[in-house]
Amino acid sequence: MSSADIMPIALDDGRIRVVIENVQPAVDGGRFPIKRIIGDVVEVFADCFADGHDVVACALLWRRAGDTEWHGTPMQPRGNDRWHADFTVNAIGRWEYTVRAWVDPFLSWQHDFSRRIEVDDVRIAASSGAALIADAARRAGTGSDAALLDAWARELAFATNAAEGADADALKRIGADAARGSIAQRYPDLTHALTCPQIYQVTVERERARFSAWYEFFPRSASDDIRRHGSFADCEAWLPYVKRMGFDVLYFPPIHPIGRSRRKGRNNTLEAGPEDVGSPWAIGAAEGGHDAILPELGTLAEFRSLVQAAASLEIDIAMDIAFQCAPDHPWVTEHPEWFRKRADGSIQYAENPPKKYQDIYPFDFETAQWRELWAALAGVFEFWVGQGVRIFRVDNPHTKAYPFWEWVIARIRAQHPEVIFLSEAFTRPRVMHRLAKAGFSQSYTYYTWRNSKQELTTYFTELTQGPGRDYFRPNVWPNTPDILPAALQYGGRPVFMARAALAATLSANYGIYGPAYELLDAAALRAGGEEYLDSEKFERRVWDRDRADSLVEFFSVLNRARRANAALQRDSGLRFLSVDNEQIIAYAKTSADGSNTVVCVVNLDPHHTQSGWVDLDMQAFGLGPDQSFQLHDVISDAHYLWHGARNYVSLDPQRCPAQIMELRAHLRRENDFDYFL
Amino acid sequence: MSSADIMPIALDDGRIRVVIENVQPAVDGGRFPIKRIIGDVVEVFADCFADGHDVVACALLWRRAGDTEWHGTPMQPRGNDRWHADFTVNAIGRWEYTVRAWVDPFLSWQHDFSRRIEVDDVRIAASSGAALIADAARRAGTGSDAALLDAWARELAFATNAAEGADADALKRIGADAARGSIAQRYPDLTHALTCPQIYQVTVERERARFSAWYEFFPRSASDDIRRHGSFADCEAWLPYVKRMGFDVLYFPPIHPIGRSRRKGRNNTLEAGPEDVGSPWAIGAAEGGHDAILPELGTLAEFRSLVQAAASLEIDIAMDIAFQCAPDHPWVTEHPEWFRKRADGSIQYAENPPKKYQDIYPFDFETAQWRELWAALAGVFEFWVGQGVRIFRVDNPHTKAYPFWEWVIARIRAQHPEVIFLSEAFTRPRVMHRLAKAGFSQSYTYYTWRNSKQELTTYFTELTQGPGRDYFRPNVWPNTPDILPAALQYGGRPVFMARAALAATLSANYGIYGPAYELLDAAALRAGGEEYLDSEKFERRVWDRDRADSLVEFFSVLNRARRANAALQRDSGLRFLSVDNEQIIAYAKTSADGSNTVVCVVNLDPHHTQSGWVDLDMQAFGLGPDQSFQLHDVISDAHYLWHGARNYVSLDPQRCPAQIMELRAHLRRENDFDYFL
Repeated sequence: MSSADIMPIALDDGRIRVVIENVQPAVDGGRFPIKRIIGDVVEVFADCFADGHDVVACALLWRRAGDTEWHGTPMQPRGNDRWHADFTVNAIGRWEYTVRAWVDPFLSWQHDFSRRIEVDDVRIAASSGAALIADAARRAGTGSDAALLDAWARELAFATNAAEGADADALKRIGADAARGSIAQRYPDLTHALTCPQIYQVTVERERARFSAWYEFFPRSASDDIRRHGSFADCEAWLPYVKRMGFDVLYFPPIHPIGRSRRKGRNNTLEAGPEDVGSPWAIGAAEGGHDAILPELGTLAEFRSLVQAAASLEIDIAMDIAFQCAPDHPWVTEHPEWFRKRADGSIQYAENPPKKYQDIYPFDFETAQWRELWAALAGVFEFWVGQGVRIFRVDNPHTKAYPFWEWVIARIRAQHPEVIFLSEAFTRPRVMHRLAKAGFSQSYTYYTWRNSKQELTTYFTELTQGPGRDYFRPNVWPNTPDILPAALQYGGRPVFMARAALAATLSANYGIYGPAYELLDAAALRAGGEEYLDSEKFERRVWDRDRADSLVEFFSVLNRARRANAALQRDSGLRFLSVDNEQIIAYAKTSADGSNTVVCVVNLDPHHTQSGWVDLDMQAFGLGPDQSFQLHDVISDAHYLWHGARNYVSLDPQRCPAQIMELRAHLRRENDFDYFL
Repeated sequence: MSSADIMPIALDDGRIRVVIENVQPAVDGGRFPIKRIIGDVVEVFADCFADGHDVVACALLWRRAGDTEWHGTPMQPRGNDRWHADFTVNAIGRWEYTVRAWVDPFLSWQHDFSRRIEVDDVRIAASSGAALIADAARRAGTGSDAALLDAWARELAFATNAAEGADADALKRIGADAARGSIAQRYPDLTHALTCPQIYQVTVERERARFSAWYEFFPRSASDDIRRHGSFADCEAWLPYVKRMGFDVLYFPPIHPIGRSRRKGRNNTLEAGPEDVGSPWAIGAAEGGHDAILPELGTLAEFRSLVQAAASLEIDIAMDIAFQCAPDHPWVTEHPEWFRKRADGSIQYAENPPKKYQDIYPFDFETAQWRELWAALAGVFEFWVGQGVRIFRVDNPHTKAYPFWEWVIARIRAQHPEVIFLSEAFTRPRVMHRLAKAGFSQSYTYYTWRNSKQELTTYFTELTQGPGRDYFRPNVWPNTPDILPAALQYGGRPVFMARAALAATLSANYGIYGPAYELLDAAALRAGGEEYLDSEKFERRVWDRDRADSLVEFFSVLNRARRANAALQRDSGLRFLSVDNEQIIAYAKTSADGSNTVVCVVNLDPHHTQSGWVDLDMQAFGLGPDQSFQLHDVISDAHYLWHGARNYVSLDPQRCPAQIMELRAHLRRENDFDYFL
């Protein structure tokens, strides 16, 4: 751009007087799509105005991507030059919208005409109006609207030119015809209309992108016998257990052949013994790479069978995609050009000096052969989609180039819009947001380390109301195979329950790494660390699912409550409630249509009963200030009768640290009192 | 755009891993320039980051518009992937800036190298480093930097390949050389650099665009004799009076020939008598139009002489540009195509049915001859710039097309960057903001109707901290010829003083319509209205400047205080102070360098003495919590010794409703106590 370009207006556009500003929702001005779920109503706002007093009209234009025609919905003024309209996305895939605005001569005429008083003014204006209506008739073409408008124009013109002199009242009656006016309005003069040059995009996904409960599980631990490696067949036997707990995504760490070179031993030691199974994230060996299966787990056919069996229980199998190679991955020899080289010519292993991860080779996204690399990586997704997988959890996406993610996700979705991508990036906020913008359906969060009431309140307010609300869908995890947070190590069963209840109700998407979670595994590798002792990342485990203190039933209740309450199936609609006790957090969630409200109260102190007074904004719940209402706690099955804005709660963590209470039909409004007499 | 375009990335860019987001300041993503004043430091921020752990570097690029080369300033990290740099705009005109970022292989190497421990690692890394430094040497070209880097690369390579085996400590010492490293850093590898495609623009104006005191005056009332029409010569005699009050912009309503057809009489009556002078905004008659002067005022030469005389007192003459015509304006017959037609073929006068303004013909900005119209209107500005005018107050810009303003202001500024434009748009917020974005230097505001503490606090917080802060410069007026606000009609002299003091201190740009203001004209045309009785818009007046209650001295003090205190010369740096009395408003303003602070306290109640306690944020003023400090009230010349955060104020409106207090050198800090012993 040079200084000659001081005039950003195309001089052909000098007569376009209308302005469109601040179209919302928009991610980075439309650079990235917003995200929605099938069936959602997309609410669009824009500032539209012109100079002077002429009447402005505007329309929301929307279509499925790929369609050539736009649908148009008239926008309605919402005050202060802000306009609104909406459209419903009734199919998954990509949608588009933008805004068109124009100074409307017919509406301007109509506005003024109704206010005219003097006979001469009315007559002259009627004559102008007849011409404008005739123009609208021409634009209407040949149908019945055209005929009606044409007749109206003639009627007004005839009355204007009446031999006996025009009768102002009659003219005003004819010209002010609201019914015919609204038809004329459908055929506006768009000569000087402005269509916002930015096309805004919507990625529309299936319901599970917004509402899902994940269960992470190592298939190799599916066996009940420590001497026998778990298999897909064993996993099938686990499905009823997962279903009983109510999870709908069963997520497996990588299932590919595991590298033997530099294989890690138990508890992340550098020397693996002959029995050691290694880390599933060290992908690739002589048996194959990212499109192969570790032979001990089974065959591709058995995997497909498992995916089918899960699907019959409405469970998605989510696959882990970790784009890195073990030193014996076939690509290392087939495509050495996809990796960085050290000065001695050897392939650069992962490192964060002085730490070395010599069992892992990262890809070089600056390779001259990046196009081939991208294509190969896209092929991995395509291969597993071909096996029936529809959800991918992507490992460390923040160590791969953003343009690649934007490209590959768009590419997969173009063919398979039902595919869901979860970004496992525990890193800096802007990096996590960029990955979400690039297309990931869901994102890991900092929930894992947010414990206090203040932390949780601030963080979930940001997640649900901050700028990410249109593109960053949180998926919150109280633990992962990499992270056994300090709170779980020291808080006992009450903390496991509280953290699960918070995750399941604060966020519509959540997950646990099990069975470590429901079986209360709290043993850390070392004090002060967050790594599991005897981590399944490096060895097989056998789990005693019959432990008396198992949280299986608790998760059943949590996930049943989520399924029964639309309020818990979306992230918006969250409102924190004031409680006069820092150890008690309380919040309400409401469904989009306002018909379902859930009030959650959690005692964050695992050691002591905590009590306090909860303040509700009665009006926000559609309740009168002095009204009584019922709350049904789905965990304890207790029913509480609350009255007015301020109510008492008390939670014994040894019994249950959480209440998930459905707000029930209003018992009595003040003016319903007669009813009970 | 079609659905095929799901990939917004040019596939040639696949290796550009760095991201630039959220460049600030930016108006509508860079669509419009930000505004600054010569000498300002432009602070630029951006989020820059890449995937993975490689080190990112970025630079602010900036230049005067029209230059082909960019200046580059390295940006510094400010935490959370936010980067900062600044540049100084040392000339008026248009400037440009953008941001470049890249993954820096040398910095990444340097970061890792210092952390390496094992001899083999150090040796291999040193070898890579020698190659990277040699690359930098090549990019450095032929100068001394190139020689130094070349030598460094050789030294490191030689030590790496030493026959006796590389000594890790020696290698680390050589490779970690910070001085030579910072030189290598100057020649980065930009192969995969990203330059933000948006060029951000800055309109840099002269100081008066940010800091000005306007005095609006009807030249035809400049005569001391009601029988004699005022002239430019009379106006010259008024200059010392205006100078004494300290105003630096003397603004005249239109000075062109006034239409005779449909001329308005006194007090806006429809029938003008033969003596009636008409409204100066009914522009054009047989004597000429927008480039002519009303003969009674004088000649073009006399006008130029007045402009010169004012300039010698450092006063700008501001001209009113009202783009509309009286029916006898020459353009009406010369260019009937520039106006809308009614159905009867007559030219459409201004109207807001049923109201008619038959003395005014607006231009039709949708005319097919809009290019000729634009050129003619631009010619009006150019003509008066040719006569020495450098400030234009534009009448009702919101009834002319925005693209025209953007075009014409850019066109005038390209030749005359010293020209200042004031937008007189008292209309809806988004319209006012759009005009400011389109290029107006200053804008009228709602101050005229903001009276209560709550209203003033909210409004000035929005003006100084809201999204308009980079493009909307308020110019606040307690009255105008069109508006005698109710507060002035009923509050007497104390309200005139309070409103003037608020205007002069809350806003760096302010103005009054005088002599009506300083001579306390409070007579309204009718009760409940805001129009002046015997308005100068429709008749000449003679003013008694020697009235005992004149506010001439008060304005002298106000404008002297503004000139003496840098804090009052900008809009940012405003901070409202809490006072426990709703009738007292208090605020502090601080200069950009923090060296000058002014505390203002105004009693908004014109009838009663009001008292209260003012709370200061001591830390924000660089004061200790228990410190004493002096305040000098420039109005009363009183000195107050305040202590700590909470201090008492009391203002008798009959004496003076306002205190403008300079915060003086700190008297004592706690630990300075010895000094006084």
